[in-house]
Amino acid sequence: MTESSGDDVATPEERDELIFAQDEVQQELVESGQHNPPWKVLIVDDERGVHDVTLLALRDFRFHQRRLEFLHAYSAADARALLDEHSDTAVILLDVVMEADDAGLALVSHIREQLGNRFVRIILRTGQPGQAPEARVVEQYDINDYKEKTELTAQKLTTSLYAALRSYHDIISLEQNRRGLARVVASTASIIQIRDLDHFLSGLLMQVVSVLGLDQDAFIGVVSGFIAGPPCAADESLLRILVGVGSFEAKQGQCVDQVLEPEDLTLLRRSLQSDHPLHQDGSYVFRFDGCKQGNGVVFVTGCDGIGSSALNLVKLFCSSASVAYENVNLYHEIEDTQREIVFMLGTVAEFRSRETGNHVRRVAEYVGLLAHHWGLEPTEVEQVKLAAPLHDIGKIAIPDQILNKPGRLTPEEFEIMKSHARIGYEMLKGSSRPILKSAAIIARDHQEKWDGSGYPAGASGETIHLYGRLTAVADVFDALGSDRCYKQAWPLEQIIDYFSEQRSRHFDPRITDILLQNLDEFLVIRERYRDDVNPAYTPFSHTE
Amino acid sequence: MTESSGDDVATPEERDELIFAQDEVQQELVESGQHNPPWKVLIVDDERGVHDVTLLALRDFRFHQRRLEFLHAYSAADARALLDEHSDTAVILLDVVMEADDAGLALVSHIREQLGNRFVRIILRTGQPGQAPEARVVEQYDINDYKEKTELTAQKLTTSLYAALRSYHDIISLEQNRRGLARVVASTASIIQIRDLDHFLSGLLMQVVSVLGLDQDAFIGVVSGFIAGPPCAADESLLRILVGVGSFEAKQGQCVDQVLEPEDLTLLRRSLQSDHPLHQDGSYVFRFDGCKQGNGVVFVTGCDGIGSSALNLVKLFCSSASVAYENVNLYHEIEDTQREIVFMLGTVAEFRSRETGNHVRRVAEYVGLLAHHWGLEPTEVEQVKLAAPLHDIGKIAIPDQILNKPGRLTPEEFEIMKSHARIGYEMLKGSSRPILKSAAIIARDHQEKWDGSGYPAGASGETIHLYGRLTAVADVFDALGSDRCYKQAWPLEQIIDYFSEQRSRHFDPRITDILLQNLDEFLVIRERYRDDVNPAYTPFSHTE
Repeated sequence: MTESSGDDVATPEERDELIFAQDEVQQELVESGQHNPPWKVLIVDDERGVHDVTLLALRDFRFHQRRLEFLHAYSAADARALLDEHSDTAVILLDVVMEADDAGLALVSHIREQLGNRFVRIILRTGQPGQAPEARVVEQYDINDYKEKTELTAQKLTTSLYAALRSYHDIISLEQNRRGLARVVASTASIIQIRDLDHFLSGLLMQVVSVLGLDQDAFIGVVSGFIAGPPCAADESLLRILVGVGSFEAKQGQCVDQVLEPEDLTLLRRSLQSDHPLHQDGSYVFRFDGCKQGNGVVFVTGCDGIGSSALNLVKLFCSSASVAYENVNLYHEIEDTQREIVFMLGTVAEFRSRETGNHVRRVAEYVGLLAHHWGLEPTEVEQVKLAAPLHDIGKIAIPDQILNKPGRLTPEEFEIMKSHARIGYEMLKGSSRPILKSAAIIARDHQEKWDGSGYPAGASGETIHLYGRLTAVADVFDALGSDRCYKQAWPLEQIIDYFSEQRSRHFDPRITDILLQNLDEFLVIRERYRDDVNPAYTPFSHTE
Repeated sequence: MTESSGDDVATPEERDELIFAQDEVQQELVESGQHNPPWKVLIVDDERGVHDVTLLALRDFRFHQRRLEFLHAYSAADARALLDEHSDTAVILLDVVMEADDAGLALVSHIREQLGNRFVRIILRTGQPGQAPEARVVEQYDINDYKEKTELTAQKLTTSLYAALRSYHDIISLEQNRRGLARVVASTASIIQIRDLDHFLSGLLMQVVSVLGLDQDAFIGVVSGFIAGPPCAADESLLRILVGVGSFEAKQGQCVDQVLEPEDLTLLRRSLQSDHPLHQDGSYVFRFDGCKQGNGVVFVTGCDGIGSSALNLVKLFCSSASVAYENVNLYHEIEDTQREIVFMLGTVAEFRSRETGNHVRRVAEYVGLLAHHWGLEPTEVEQVKLAAPLHDIGKIAIPDQILNKPGRLTPEEFEIMKSHARIGYEMLKGSSRPILKSAAIIARDHQEKWDGSGYPAGASGETIHLYGRLTAVADVFDALGSDRCYKQAWPLEQIIDYFSEQRSRHFDPRITDILLQNLDEFLVIRERYRDDVNPAYTPFSHTE
């Protein structure tokens, strides 16, 4: 194995693609000197003398600056037990005839077939070639060398061990890389499923830990990390911790300079200028592009002995994760815009009838709360909440003089006023969009009453669509509790009395109960979206 | 190498994760019997007799049911040339002393370092061990066995070759799998960047071909494939081709039963019921979840010799791609909903002033076309197009009797009418959403005139925001060309004359020129969104 880079077996595309030269894997094994573990060699032989001779012959053996660690088994059964414990055994020097004439050969089958271990290199050493003829054994058993003990000089043993360790090293390097890529695939599949901005970064941090292979038992409690991002675009040094694990779990919101050692802080600052992941003394930083207000960083510490190939895997993963994060941000930007526009559309309709600014927002929140307690799925709750602001959209068609008539409406005028439900439905029903379909239903049914005395259809009970019944309760609850130009807000007791009285008359009894039993939650919403705070929009700031 | 499954070296997590047992790779090599290529063995020796003896000794050699193919080099230089041509050489039987005393050793360095080929197994065979002492050579050179020619019986050569091919096979299997995973990583990274529904499926098909490794030269022109999906939820057998490559490129829109051979059609039908990819005679089908109206399939044919491990890679890729596709669908669903709601909001404002149904939609399209010819980036064109329908949103605040006054407005009434620009701006400016910010600018500036005679600010020239100048041209062009209750649509010549006359007076001269020079494109839009076809919404179907 050499230290060169490049790989002419791969096509140029494959090389360019992403694959780090294998020498990096190797380089890092060399670099991480403090961790230079020995190669485990299992000697399986029922003659103690063979063990001794082997040790003597391989006393000074080194491969890739790593020495050997010998495990000793005096029977195939011993060997099985040792292999269970040492699945990272590199080479087995295996006798054939031990407790049975073919004990060694049976062990080969056990290792390859039962244990499924295809990595360990097996050198068969036999003293009785008659029991295990070379031609047959080498063809039928998955062994990597066959030696008669008589021919096995110290030099021949050394050569055979070099060959075996070279193969083992080649295979393990590839396997580590393959597993790393498999972790990247799994982590990418996992991260792109997160559509929720709040969960994305903690999911990302978990997956980085997983890609680094730090989710193994050995690292639990040792690894800490965080994702930090700029709270404002002004100053990159103001990076704050957005999400943390381990010792940073409780540091959310804190500035990175307050929680990091000076050398880690320097590393983090350098990473903001670097296109590559950086590492130093078991701390790793990757710049993470795609944060809304600027680039963030992923910082992981406490993971000595993880080298450049792991960093490359994380780099690979982060490039996909950045795109996924952008997608999630984009998705939420559109979703928020949509919500605002719906509120605006709702507000516009209310505006002409001089409803107050936050009315549609409160109704939306009340409907969402009622729907949640009713037991709808979160996605449906979200949908009906998004649609509810449009319940009075049909009022756009009602002339000013009726909509804003100070006195009582004549029967003819009231008929026109009532048409807003049907008009709203007609306006919205043509759409194929789920939200607008829901809004159409709400516009149609929100003025129906449980006892059949409402309009436009005079429907009753459960023939009124659930969305309409939910909105009726929310709409009236808000209207009664709000000041209007022609009336003061009712006191809470009076509102409660009214709903109790109209239970099963105007309102669905179960929905009425939900309101009355969870009144405190509704009052929180009422307070949060008071008319005099946070006006949703400012259409009321102008003179008319 | 055995046929068992399971792999106890991997942690249970890793095993569960996704990795197909390596025996599948092997199994498929065995399965694809018609493709059983021989193992390439390169003999490098300057003695012709050694070549002959080697052939004789290995005459009947088989490994994994594959025979040997011998390549003959009589010097290290020969060998280099042959290796350039045969990068898939499995084993080299290498002499040391040829054109130079260390020609063989130099070749080892060349192979490992210059060629970067770490896969080929090298068995050194020397007739002059003095030139290449075993202890030194085996330590310093990346070779996989060392034999003196004198000790090399036919059986020893056979054993050495078995060992070498076993290692080579292990390494190549891992490497194929590793490369496959790398392709999955690259393809996933590529597919999640596609946000455009139209390009997603063709991108997906390309990436499936890439994951299968079929984008190599050898397959170009041989591989064909398509993605098919249901045009309606009613009947799964009605799958139609959504996108195709190769022989299916021109079959878009056709039903799969019309283009497939019966056995392929059966395979495709079976795949709809299967959670696993299916293959038969070089045809592969994967069910692809996440199509909006039901599940689709990816079908690829003409790729004999690709086995189950490739299918597993595609399965892995498709599971991420399904999520990505869902994301794209979701994204477009929200985006389309947003567009509809904006049109609705625009329509609502126009509604009261009895504008016609498709006015805002046409204005949006005109603005988009003008912005495109002006040279704005596609994303900005899209944004201003989305925002334009809200230009008259402030009219919501204008009382009916002014908005719909049949006669001429009094100066006082006109002042109130003019306030709609500022009111629209006030309504929208508070939002942090880019689209609504753009809409605020349009509402404010769309009534300004190039010569400063407009309102509300009396701004002139380029102090009027570009979006306002674009919308002014689009709005007037549509108003002049449409019937209104109080006027007939103007003939086209009269409209052209008006714009020529108002160039640099009412309108930005450059935008006027864009309109007049591309009039045919604008007329296509006018025809497509005529008031009597495809009404955007139906707020006009009701009586008032």
